[in-house]
Amino acid sequence: MTDVTRSPTRYGFLGPSGTFTETALRDRLAAVAASDPAAVGREELVPFPSVDIALEAVRRGDVAAAMVPIENSVEGGVTATLDALSSGEQLAIIAEQLVPITFVLAAAPVDGSGDGSGMPIAGIRAVGTHPHAWAQVRGWMTEHLPAAEHVRASSTAAAAAAVAAGARPPGAAGATAGDGSAAGELPAYEACVCSPGAARDHGLRILAEQIEDNAGAVTRFVLVARRGRLPQPTGADKTTVVLHQREDRPGGLLDLLEQFATRGINLTRIESRPTGEGLGSYCFSLDCEGHVADERLGEALTGLHRVCRRVVFLGSYPRADARPTPVRAGTSDDDFIAARYWLRSLRGE
Amino acid sequence: MTDVTRSPTRYGFLGPSGTFTETALRDRLAAVAASDPAAVGREELVPFPSVDIALEAVRRGDVAAAMVPIENSVEGGVTATLDALSSGEQLAIIAEQLVPITFVLAAAPVDGSGDGSGMPIAGIRAVGTHPHAWAQVRGWMTEHLPAAEHVRASSTAAAAAAVAAGARPPGAAGATAGDGSAAGELPAYEACVCSPGAARDHGLRILAEQIEDNAGAVTRFVLVARRGRLPQPTGADKTTVVLHQREDRPGGLLDLLEQFATRGINLTRIESRPTGEGLGSYCFSLDCEGHVADERLGEALTGLHRVCRRVVFLGSYPRADARPTPVRAGTSDDDFIAARYWLRSLRGE
Amino acid sequence: MTDVTRSPTRYGFLGPSGTFTETALRDRLAAVAASDPAAVGREELVPFPSVDIALEAVRRGDVAAAMVPIENSVEGGVTATLDALSSGEQLAIIAEQLVPITFVLAAAPVDGSGDGSGMPIAGIRAVGTHPHAWAQVRGWMTEHLPAAEHVRASSTAAAAAAVAAGARPPGAAGATAGDGSAAGELPAYEACVCSPGAARDHGLRILAEQIEDNAGAVTRFVLVARRGRLPQPTGADKTTVVLHQREDRPGGLLDLLEQFATRGINLTRIESRPTGEGLGSYCFSLDCEGHVADERLGEALTGLHRVCRRVVFLGSYPRADARPTPVRAGTSDDDFIAARYWLRSLRGE
Amino acid sequence: MTDVTRSPTRYGFLGPSGTFTETALRDRLAAVAASDPAAVGREELVPFPSVDIALEAVRRGDVAAAMVPIENSVEGGVTATLDALSSGEQLAIIAEQLVPITFVLAAAPVDGSGDGSGMPIAGIRAVGTHPHAWAQVRGWMTEHLPAAEHVRASSTAAAAAAVAAGARPPGAAGATAGDGSAAGELPAYEACVCSPGAARDHGLRILAEQIEDNAGAVTRFVLVARRGRLPQPTGADKTTVVLHQREDRPGGLLDLLEQFATRGINLTRIESRPTGEGLGSYCFSLDCEGHVADERLGEALTGLHRVCRRVVFLGSYPRADARPTPVRAGTSDDDFIAARYWLRSLRGE
Repeated sequence: MTDVTRSPTRYGFLGPSGTFTETALRDRLAAVAASDPAAVGREELVPFPSVDIALEAVRRGDVAAAMVPIENSVEGGVTATLDALSSGEQLAIIAEQLVPITFVLAAAPVDGSGDGSGMPIAGIRAVGTHPHAWAQVRGWMTEHLPAAEHVRASSTAAAAAAVAAGARPPGAAGATAGDGSAAGELPAYEACVCSPGAARDHGLRILAEQIEDNAGAVTRFVLVARRGRLPQPTGADKTTVVLHQREDRPGGLLDLLEQFATRGINLTRIESRPTGEGLGSYCFSLDCEGHVADERLGEALTGLHRVCRRVVFLGSYPRADARPTPVRAGTSDDDFIAARYWLRSLRGE
Repeated sequence: MTDVTRSPTRYGFLGPSGTFTETALRDRLAAVAASDPAAVGREELVPFPSVDIALEAVRRGDVAAAMVPIENSVEGGVTATLDALSSGEQLAIIAEQLVPITFVLAAAPVDGSGDGSGMPIAGIRAVGTHPHAWAQVRGWMTEHLPAAEHVRASSTAAAAAAVAAGARPPGAAGATAGDGSAAGELPAYEACVCSPGAARDHGLRILAEQIEDNAGAVTRFVLVARRGRLPQPTGADKTTVVLHQREDRPGGLLDLLEQFATRGINLTRIESRPTGEGLGSYCFSLDCEGHVADERLGEALTGLHRVCRRVVFLGSYPRADARPTPVRAGTSDDDFIAARYWLRSLRGE
Repeated sequence: MTDVTRSPTRYGFLGPSGTFTETALRDRLAAVAASDPAAVGREELVPFPSVDIALEAVRRGDVAAAMVPIENSVEGGVTATLDALSSGEQLAIIAEQLVPITFVLAAAPVDGSGDGSGMPIAGIRAVGTHPHAWAQVRGWMTEHLPAAEHVRASSTAAAAAAVAAGARPPGAAGATAGDGSAAGELPAYEACVCSPGAARDHGLRILAEQIEDNAGAVTRFVLVARRGRLPQPTGADKTTVVLHQREDRPGGLLDLLEQFATRGINLTRIESRPTGEGLGSYCFSLDCEGHVADERLGEALTGLHRVCRRVVFLGSYPRADARPTPVRAGTSDDDFIAARYWLRSLRGE
Repeated sequence: MTDVTRSPTRYGFLGPSGTFTETALRDRLAAVAASDPAAVGREELVPFPSVDIALEAVRRGDVAAAMVPIENSVEGGVTATLDALSSGEQLAIIAEQLVPITFVLAAAPVDGSGDGSGMPIAGIRAVGTHPHAWAQVRGWMTEHLPAAEHVRASSTAAAAAAVAAGARPPGAAGATAGDGSAAGELPAYEACVCSPGAARDHGLRILAEQIEDNAGAVTRFVLVARRGRLPQPTGADKTTVVLHQREDRPGGLLDLLEQFATRGINLTRIESRPTGEGLGSYCFSLDCEGHVADERLGEALTGLHRVCRRVVFLGSYPRADARPTPVRAGTSDDDFIAARYWLRSLRGE
């Protein structure tokens, strides 16, 4: 008998509803549900206005985990994610999710019938969206709506909400790309550029799909939880760490990277970040291939622990693309174990 | 006789007016004016809604240069800056500017007298600002305005503009940190968190100053222009490049960094960025100490040109902090020149 | 009660008697005796005609250990030592010994009285010695005996023996430095250049002391035994290994050396040696600071075991100069142990 | 008309006559003559008793050049060669020569008829040769002449000369491998182990050929001359240098080797050598692939000149095995030149 009284698991995400981050979270939960049908429908999704507020909710236990962007997001948040993960009580990344970035042009149904017959695309004078999203559809806009003005919104989902609310104060002037002036937060647009999910959630009419200039763009998100049991190694994992150098000097970063290279470990992301301890003080946030349970990565981490002022371990988790970690000659677990046995024989142990 | 008919030089920046990016641009122009008084007052500052739109204006020649954030900005734009600099016709960074990040709590003058006597801080129920700014003042808010709601704005300057406009539709609900829900773009706040400049520009009443939790934060901005004459070497310079690897393999980044290390060159920033040519294809954006005119940096760049698939040179420019580049033993221009003479003697040239 | 019936321990050395290698062995045994008086006088010293014959005697158990040159010897043997150590059943270096290299000019007593009054230095027409020794005294010879011819001997000790034997076949022509011709093995000299010990052993009359041009020269020797119990770590140790690369390519040696450098280990000797498996196939013989029981060296050795085709461990032993191994920040045993505990906590072990 | 009055060119070698070094010199001159027939027979070959005496003759101009061993020689001289090349007025290696190492067992003709019928191999009781040569034929000796004693000679050629001279003092005892005792310089052997050339030169009877245990051994020799015009690059060259470090520290050698690796240059030999400036002060003697005229090697040498205390250039010369230098991607002369043009364009030159 199923425990129907069990309260749903709460998951946070960088909101508002309808962002690509929510898509990442829904996709992730669907993937988990596919392998655990009993879990379906037992989640509650909670949007947060910023990455660090979302992560604080994780730290407090308000949500079990939170999905946040870690790379190249349309609506920002990457450096905020890196910084929020590095400070405060330490959290752990437990999953990675990739989301294809695609945009629609959407408007409110004229009469609720949803057929959109009342408004041709050509009549659109202003389009609301986040500036980053606008940047990614400008090719399409120049071709199809050359006269449309861009009105800044704080997110693509907020633009969709505004269109759905139909708030169009008479006389409110939209900011244009031409003069770049801001018009406060007053919506003044008949259409918006947003994700397909946001358009659907707000009951908007989709005027055009896949209007992004760069087809195939994908963004990475990570699911962050409190420290606890590590995800099992799968042979296709990533590990995220933040490294604080002992001193700043030419070749200092090289010394850190050699700890990976001498064990045959590939990096997939690296970013220097100011530590907040004064200009010129940096740390390095990076992802590498492999799991902390792997011999080679374990030894690399101990090496970093020895040479760094501080190492923040942010988790080992399965890669979203499931690409198996390449293992170079001499770096398999067996190679490490064989080498240790040989060392013991030398030492007469 | 001064040429009073000369049209003003136009400079772009990531808008809207009142952002820290505008402060960076004004500070920069003031520094230039200090050494060239004739130039005072001959500039026009133009806000742009996004970094790439600002940089396109530079490419088209609409503005002489544009100031954009390159690190840790309150209002984002960093990865957008890196990506926009890497694509399209190549531009050059010609200056770096540091801006202390400080926030004020500001409200509209009750009766235009500006003395603020009509409204105590304690009465504020909602505060508008960009989520990143909100994150940086939450300590202060928790202490002084624990009950105030946060309303998302697309920038701190936009929040200031909204407060100045006094737009407060009755019944409009602000988004709260608690539930994270979005309220569209309707302003619903009596106060905002913004830069001192934005408060002044909009004639707001300052209720509290220096409310940021982390005093001493500084953000870097760069001034970008079309390719042309390089800034002269000053002995305290930085150089920015983007490196595209030939192949992705363990130690590949190491090989690139050794081109710097073998010439004694220190890095001050590094970030891997997806190239947009498929997931897993990365490039590295980095800053290093020194000027392309320096012997050691020149040789390092030729080494990178040989081993990389592509090297994008984004400029050599004076450091904002004017800290002289340390020159290690064996890496001065004289050392390079002496070594070349020695080589010629070996070759019998 | 001492076991007076115990047979003496036999030690081999690169002979003949009177070479610097014998001096190294005697010095070594004296040093041991100083800390174990009961052992005094219980050794038998056995000369061998070549390094590899000496080492075979060790392998067979004919001698307990053998002293052989490993660096810069007057009478050669270094590469022979390296090659002999690398092939056959594996042996272990158990001690290192330094011997100051100093030469005497010696002649046979004219009448057995040993006062040398019968022959002034100026009358010497030919001097026998090993060519390497001759090279090291030529400055002195040019000044004091400009007309004396050099006669090649197979070792300095052999020259001393020949002078002692007084064998001077009439008409036998010595080889001169001028024409370099060889005169077979017929001694034809009234004096020799040899070690002080060889002159004493053969009852020769010393005509001049410290005639070497380069005062202060010191040569290294090693004491080699069968594999068994390792010498205890002293904090001032060396370790000798031979590394066979997997493949020959630019930077291949670099990869091996990084295994030392990433653990802060200093090298004190390195030599590439043909492996005998075809021209172009090399291995590297090297000494490094530290003991196999040290954490950092243990990990470096396991790293080499993983990346090399073959690693031959030739022993950890106290340094002759007793200079303590410098331990860089992050490379002490405690640092390694702390790092391993930290790793276990990450892994939840 | 040929100038028959021209005096022959004199070449030195590490003597005595009949050594493998003489073979190396003769092979080299034959190779030259093959491409310049007019030079045939115009050379005079001069043996020298030691490498440094030979090199001094080169410095004085007594000989045009001298052939000396640089690797793994039967009769030593390698470290002497390295040291002699590093000190004094600088010389240059102008050619490399490889000589297969093969030995014969040879005896004096019984009656001058040279048919050897008078003495069966089985009757040989003592064999003279250099200890290194004896070590290389012991397998054969154990099988065919198990009872024969080894008598030390100062070189294989000296042993051949002694056999030819028939000097066999009655009662003279040879040193045996068994007890390792030396017997002075008195020859006491009916046969010798030497090179085929030495046997021929001394008119000896060859009893057995190719008696070396390790067939296929080859030794490297180099031809050394005064500094002057460099040999032309051939695309299959080597370069020899001696590097003196600025300071001794972990990773110091690594820094030197990275100067090669970052330019894609392969090393073919490396040896640390005491500098003679106190124990613990080392330099590195090494060979690498390529010619000083190559762009990549030129830049590597300037890099070494900058970071080393001293760089001694000992020559660029064709490889004896004529194996073309592999050129890695990004390290051809064209790659260097293209990179320099690109740098000039960046600098606006």
